[in-house]
Amino acid sequence: MKAKRRVGILGATGTVGQRLIHMLRNHPYFEVTAVAASDRSEGKRFADVCKWKLPFEMPESVKDMTLYPSKVEPGRPQIDCDIIIASLPGDIALESEGSFAAAGIPVISNSSAFRMHPDVPLIVPEINPDHLDIIPYQQKKRGFKTGYIVTNPNCTTIGLVMALAPLHKAFGLEAVMMTSMQAISGAGYPGVASMDILDNVIPHIGGEEEKVEEEPQKILGKGSKTKLTAAPFLVSAQCNRVAVHDGHLESVRVKLKKKATVEKVIEALESFTGLPQELKLPTAPVRPIIVRREQDRPQPRLDRDAENGMATVVGRISKDTIFDFKFTLISHNTIRGAAGAALLNAELLVAKGLL
Amino acid sequence: MKAKRRVGILGATGTVGQRLIHMLRNHPYFEVTAVAASDRSEGKRFADVCKWKLPFEMPESVKDMTLYPSKVEPGRPQIDCDIIIASLPGDIALESEGSFAAAGIPVISNSSAFRMHPDVPLIVPEINPDHLDIIPYQQKKRGFKTGYIVTNPNCTTIGLVMALAPLHKAFGLEAVMMTSMQAISGAGYPGVASMDILDNVIPHIGGEEEKVEEEPQKILGKGSKTKLTAAPFLVSAQCNRVAVHDGHLESVRVKLKKKATVEKVIEALESFTGLPQELKLPTAPVRPIIVRREQDRPQPRLDRDAENGMATVVGRISKDTIFDFKFTLISHNTIRGAAGAALLNAELLVAKGLL
Amino acid sequence: MKAKRRVGILGATGTVGQRLIHMLRNHPYFEVTAVAASDRSEGKRFADVCKWKLPFEMPESVKDMTLYPSKVEPGRPQIDCDIIIASLPGDIALESEGSFAAAGIPVISNSSAFRMHPDVPLIVPEINPDHLDIIPYQQKKRGFKTGYIVTNPNCTTIGLVMALAPLHKAFGLEAVMMTSMQAISGAGYPGVASMDILDNVIPHIGGEEEKVEEEPQKILGKGSKTKLTAAPFLVSAQCNRVAVHDGHLESVRVKLKKKATVEKVIEALESFTGLPQELKLPTAPVRPIIVRREQDRPQPRLDRDAENGMATVVGRISKDTIFDFKFTLISHNTIRGAAGAALLNAELLVAKGLL
Amino acid sequence: MKAKRRVGILGATGTVGQRLIHMLRNHPYFEVTAVAASDRSEGKRFADVCKWKLPFEMPESVKDMTLYPSKVEPGRPQIDCDIIIASLPGDIALESEGSFAAAGIPVISNSSAFRMHPDVPLIVPEINPDHLDIIPYQQKKRGFKTGYIVTNPNCTTIGLVMALAPLHKAFGLEAVMMTSMQAISGAGYPGVASMDILDNVIPHIGGEEEKVEEEPQKILGKGSKTKLTAAPFLVSAQCNRVAVHDGHLESVRVKLKKKATVEKVIEALESFTGLPQELKLPTAPVRPIIVRREQDRPQPRLDRDAENGMATVVGRISKDTIFDFKFTLISHNTIRGAAGAALLNAELLVAKGLL
Repeated sequence: MKAKRRVGILGATGTVGQRLIHMLRNHPYFEVTAVAASDRSEGKRFADVCKWKLPFEMPESVKDMTLYPSKVEPGRPQIDCDIIIASLPGDIALESEGSFAAAGIPVISNSSAFRMHPDVPLIVPEINPDHLDIIPYQQKKRGFKTGYIVTNPNCTTIGLVMALAPLHKAFGLEAVMMTSMQAISGAGYPGVASMDILDNVIPHIGGEEEKVEEEPQKILGKGSKTKLTAAPFLVSAQCNRVAVHDGHLESVRVKLKKKATVEKVIEALESFTGLPQELKLPTAPVRPIIVRREQDRPQPRLDRDAENGMATVVGRISKDTIFDFKFTLISHNTIRGAAGAALLNAELLVAKGLL
Repeated sequence: MKAKRRVGILGATGTVGQRLIHMLRNHPYFEVTAVAASDRSEGKRFADVCKWKLPFEMPESVKDMTLYPSKVEPGRPQIDCDIIIASLPGDIALESEGSFAAAGIPVISNSSAFRMHPDVPLIVPEINPDHLDIIPYQQKKRGFKTGYIVTNPNCTTIGLVMALAPLHKAFGLEAVMMTSMQAISGAGYPGVASMDILDNVIPHIGGEEEKVEEEPQKILGKGSKTKLTAAPFLVSAQCNRVAVHDGHLESVRVKLKKKATVEKVIEALESFTGLPQELKLPTAPVRPIIVRREQDRPQPRLDRDAENGMATVVGRISKDTIFDFKFTLISHNTIRGAAGAALLNAELLVAKGLL
Repeated sequence: MKAKRRVGILGATGTVGQRLIHMLRNHPYFEVTAVAASDRSEGKRFADVCKWKLPFEMPESVKDMTLYPSKVEPGRPQIDCDIIIASLPGDIALESEGSFAAAGIPVISNSSAFRMHPDVPLIVPEINPDHLDIIPYQQKKRGFKTGYIVTNPNCTTIGLVMALAPLHKAFGLEAVMMTSMQAISGAGYPGVASMDILDNVIPHIGGEEEKVEEEPQKILGKGSKTKLTAAPFLVSAQCNRVAVHDGHLESVRVKLKKKATVEKVIEALESFTGLPQELKLPTAPVRPIIVRREQDRPQPRLDRDAENGMATVVGRISKDTIFDFKFTLISHNTIRGAAGAALLNAELLVAKGLL
Repeated sequence: MKAKRRVGILGATGTVGQRLIHMLRNHPYFEVTAVAASDRSEGKRFADVCKWKLPFEMPESVKDMTLYPSKVEPGRPQIDCDIIIASLPGDIALESEGSFAAAGIPVISNSSAFRMHPDVPLIVPEINPDHLDIIPYQQKKRGFKTGYIVTNPNCTTIGLVMALAPLHKAFGLEAVMMTSMQAISGAGYPGVASMDILDNVIPHIGGEEEKVEEEPQKILGKGSKTKLTAAPFLVSAQCNRVAVHDGHLESVRVKLKKKATVEKVIEALESFTGLPQELKLPTAPVRPIIVRREQDRPQPRLDRDAENGMATVVGRISKDTIFDFKFTLISHNTIRGAAGAALLNAELLVAKGLL
C-alpha cells in the first residue's frame, strides 16, 4: 500500500474546509498535512482561528496545525504537499489556485474561478471522467509542469447535472428549467444573517443563476485531448435561499429530444452508475441517484444525508403540462456539492494514476 | 348611508375565518352578525372554541357569538344574514355553500369546490369583474332565486394571475412556469407539523399544482351572460412548502406572444389598475402590483404586508434563457389569497348593486 | 453467546418508537420481533402505517411486521417476546403496561404513568441501578410473576439529573432552579403545529414542570428492597418549547450544602461515571457528562449528538449571584431522554441477570 | 402649538435606529432632522447606505438625508438639533454621546455606556421619572451647560423591571431569578448568523447577564438631587438567544419580603400605571402591563406587539416551589426595549419642561 497522499487544504477554516477535514479524518488515500486560510490568519493555530460549526468534534490531528497563506509567494511559508484541495471565494481563487498549479502541485478547486476556462476540466466522476484527458493540454498551454487544475461544479449545478446525465444519455436534453431552494450553509459562515432568513425566503444568490445556466452543458458535453465541447441544450435557473441548514432542493422541468415515459425516466435515473461505482472509490455513493416514490419526497432534512450526503435523491417525477417531465431533487450542498465532490475528484485522480 | 350588510362567516374559527373577522372589525359596508364552524362546535361560544392565532386581539363583537352549523338543514339553527363568506375545506364546501345559495343567500366562496364549475364566476375584481354577468344564468340553471355563488382563486393562483393579467393584456401569454414557496398558514391550523418544516422544505401540497394549472386561464378568459371561456395558454406548477408564516413566493417564467422588453414588462405591471381602484373599494390596494428594483426583493417578511397585504409585489424581472422573461412575486396568502380576496369580491358585489 | 432477547415495542410508530427501532437495528443483546401501535392500526403492516420521520432509512426487518394491539386482552393477538419497551402516551400507559407485566413480561416504560409509584424503580443506570432491588417487592405486591415494570425519567428530567448526580454526591443539593428550552420532537408527531413555533416560543408544556419538580428527588434518593426514599431537595421548573428539532437545553442554578468552587464543580462533573461505563454496556456513553469550556456552548445543534446522543453536555458553569452556581446543559430528548434511556435500562437488566 | 423639536439620530442605519425613524414618522413632538452613522458612511445618502429591514417602507423624509458623523469633532460636520437619540454600540457610545452633551445637546442613550454612572439617570418613565432630578447635578459635575445624558435600560432589563416595579412596591423584592429567550433583532444586523440559530439556541449573549443583574436595582432605587441609591435586592440572569425575530421572553421567579397570593400579584401587575399614562404621552401604552390568563401565553409572536410593542405582557403567574412566585413575560426588544424606551423618555423630558 502506497503511503497516503499529503493534502493541503485552502480555505480550511470555512464551511466547506471544515467538512473536508471531517471527511478526510480517516481516509484510505489521503491525509491532511497542511491547512491554509486568509492572510490575517497566517501563522496562527488552526483551532484558535477556526469557528468549527459541524456537529462533530474537530479532528485532533488538525488542531495544532499552523495556518499557511493561501497562495505561493516568494518569502512566505509554502505548503508542501501532493495535492491541494481549495475552497476559496471566487475573487481570490484565480490567483491562489494558479500559483499552486504553477508551483507544481495539482489543485482540485471548488471555486468558480477556473470552471469555465476552456482548458480546465469541470468534472463529475460519474459523468465525465474522460474530460481529464485535457490535463496535458492545460499543462502545456499554461506552462504547468506537474501541477494542473481540476474543478468541480457549483453546489446547485451538481445535483441538477446528476439527474440530467442519465436523461441526456437516454433521451437527449433540449431544455431545462430549474428553480432552487438553497440551504444557508451554501453562503458560508457567518453568511446569511438570521434576520434575513427566519420566516423568510431570499430570492437572490449572487452569481448562482449564471453558473447553473452554463455549467451543466460543459459537464454533459464532449471531451477530447484538446477541447471540451458544451452540449447544446438550454438551462434556465431561478435561485432562492430558504431556512434550511444543508441540502439544495430543486424543482426541475425538462424537455427531451426523444419520447419517454415516467417509467422510463425512473429507470434511466435508477440504473445510473459510473466509474466511481465501478472503481469503488472510497467516497463514491453506491447509488448515485436514488428515486423516491412517496408524493412528498425528497425533503432536505430526510434525504440530504442519503449515501453519506453523496447521493442525489429525486422524486415527484411526473408529466409536465408544458415541458415533458417535472421532478424535484435534493443534493447535499457542502458534501456532494463541495467537499465530497472535490474529494471524489481527488480519488478519481488517484485511481487514474494522475496523482 | 345604507345599513351595513350582515355577514355570516363559514369556517369562522379557521385561519382564514379569523383573518376575515379581523378585516371586518370596522368595515364600512359589512358587519359580522353570525359565525359558523364544524358540527361539533355548534351551539358553543365563539371565544371558547376558536384558537385565535393572529397577533391582534379577537374583536369583542364576536367573542360571545354562538356558533351556527355550516349548512342549511331542516331542524337546525340557520344563519340569517345578507351574505355568506365561506372558507371551508373543499370536501364539505360543495354541499354547504350550495345549501346557502339555495336558501337565497349570496355566497362568496374561498374554497375550490365551485371554482371550475362552468356557470360559477371565479373573480379577481381587478381582472374580470365582468364575469359576474353570468350570475343570472347560474341562478336560472341551478334554480337559485336570490342566492348565487361567486368564488375567488386559490391562494397561489391569485398572486400569479395578478402579475399575468397585465402581461396577457399587453403581450399575450403563451406559457407560464411557476414554482412556489408557500407559507405554512396556507395549510390552516394545526396544519403543517413543525417537525415537517423546521430546517426543511416539503415539495408537495395536495391538489395545489392542479388548481394553479387551470384557474389562471379561467380568470383571464372571456365572460358573457351564458359562458366563461378559458384563455388558451398553458401553466405548469411545482408547489413547495417552506418555513414562512405568511406570503407565497413564486418564481415565474413567461412565454409571450408579442415581443417585449424588461422595461415594457415593468411598465405594464406598474400601470395596472382595475375597477376596485377606480371605485375606491375599501379593501382595494391603491397599487395592486408593486414592482421592486432591488435585486433581492420581493421577500415574504418584508413585502407580504404591502398595501395591507392586498398588493402583489413583483421583482427580479429579467430575460429568461428559455422563455421570454422570469421574475419573482409575493402575495399574502391569507389576505389577498383568501380573506381579502373574498372581501374585495363582496365589496365589488355591493358596488355593482348585486348585494 | 446467548440468543438475542426478543423485544416488543409499544408505540412503535411514534417518534420515540422509531428512534428505538433505529437504535436496535444491529444490537448485540436485542432484536425487535414485534411492534404495536394504536388500536386502529392493529393488523396493518408497519411500513404502511408508520410516518417515518428520521433521516435514516426504516430498517428492512420491521417493514413487513404486522402491528399488534398495545395491550394484553383476551381474544386479541398478543405479542410474544422477552421484554416490552413502551413509549406510550401517559393516559393509556397505565393499563397497557400493567397488562403486559401481569402477563409475565418485563416492561421498560418511557411513560410517566408508573414513574412515581412507590414500588416502581425510576432508573438512570449511571445513578441509581441499585433501585432495581425493589423489583421482587413490586412483583409480590402486584401479583406479577415474571413480569415487572421499570421506568426511565421524563426527557427533561434526565439531562438535569445527570448533571445533578455528581453535585449531589460531592456537595449535597439544597435547591435547583431549572428553565428549559425544549425541542419539538418531545411532543411527538404531528405534535407542535408549525404556526405555533416558527418565530416563536411556547412557554408551556403540559405536565412537564410537575414531572421535573419531583422525579430528580426519587432518582437521587435511597433505594432498598422495600422502599425508595426521595432525596430532600427542592426543584423549581419553568418549561418552554423552542424551534429546535432535538435536544432539550436547560438553564440551571443550584444551591449546595457544602462549599464548592467552579473548578471543583467541573471536576465532579467530568469525573462522573457509573455502572454502565464499568460494564461497557453497548449503549452507554463513554463519558456520561461532557463539560465544555467555550462561552457559547452547549448548543442543541452542535452538542445534542455527543456520544451518539447519550451524553449530557454541560457548559457556562459559573458562580450565581443568588444560588451557588449556574450552568447550561443539553441532553438529546429522544435518545438519552427516551429511546436510549429505555434501551440502557434494558441493557442494565441483562447485565444484572434480570432479563 | 410649539414647533416640533428637531431630533438627531445616532446609529440611524442600525436596527434600533430604523425602528426609531419609523416611530417618529408622524410624531406630534418631534421630527427627525439629522441622521448619523459610522465614520465610513459620513456624507453619504441615508437611503444608499441603510439596509432597511423593517416590513414598512422607509419614510420619504429621511431617504435623501446626508449622514453625519456620530460625534462632535472640530473640523467635521456637526448635527444641529434639539435632542440626540443615540443607539450606538457600547464601545463608541461613551465618547460619542459625551461629545454631544458637552456641545450642549441633551442626549437620550440606548447604550450601556453611561447607564451605571452614578450621576446619570436610568429612566423608565412609568417607574422612576423622579430620577431626572439628578440632571442639574450631572451637568454641574461634568461641566455640561444645556446638554445632559439620560439613559434607558438594556432590552432584557426593561421587560423584567416593568413586571418587578409593582411587585417591589406592593410586596418588596428580595431576589429575582430570570432566564431569557431573546430575539435575534437584539443583536442588530447582520448580527446573529443564521447557521448559529436555525434549529438551535445560543446560551450566551455577551455582557447581557451582567447588565440585567445590576440595572433593575438602580431603576427601582431611590433618587434625589445628588444621588441615586440602588434598591437592595439580588438578581440572577441566564440569557439565551432563540430563533425569534422580535420579543424577549423571560422566565422569572421572585422572592418577596411580604406575603402575597397569586391574585394579589395579578392585581398589583394589572393596576400598574405611571406618569406616562397620566400625562397621556404619545408613545405611552394605555396598559403598561397586560396580564394574560391562558396557560400558554405570553408568546413572542402573539404578544410582542401589544400596545404597539410598548406593553409588557405577563402570564403563567403561579406559586414557585422554591421562591414565592414564578411567571413568564414578553417585551418587544426593539420597541419597548430600545427605540420606544428612548422615545418615551424624550416625551417625558418634553412634558417635564426639560426639552
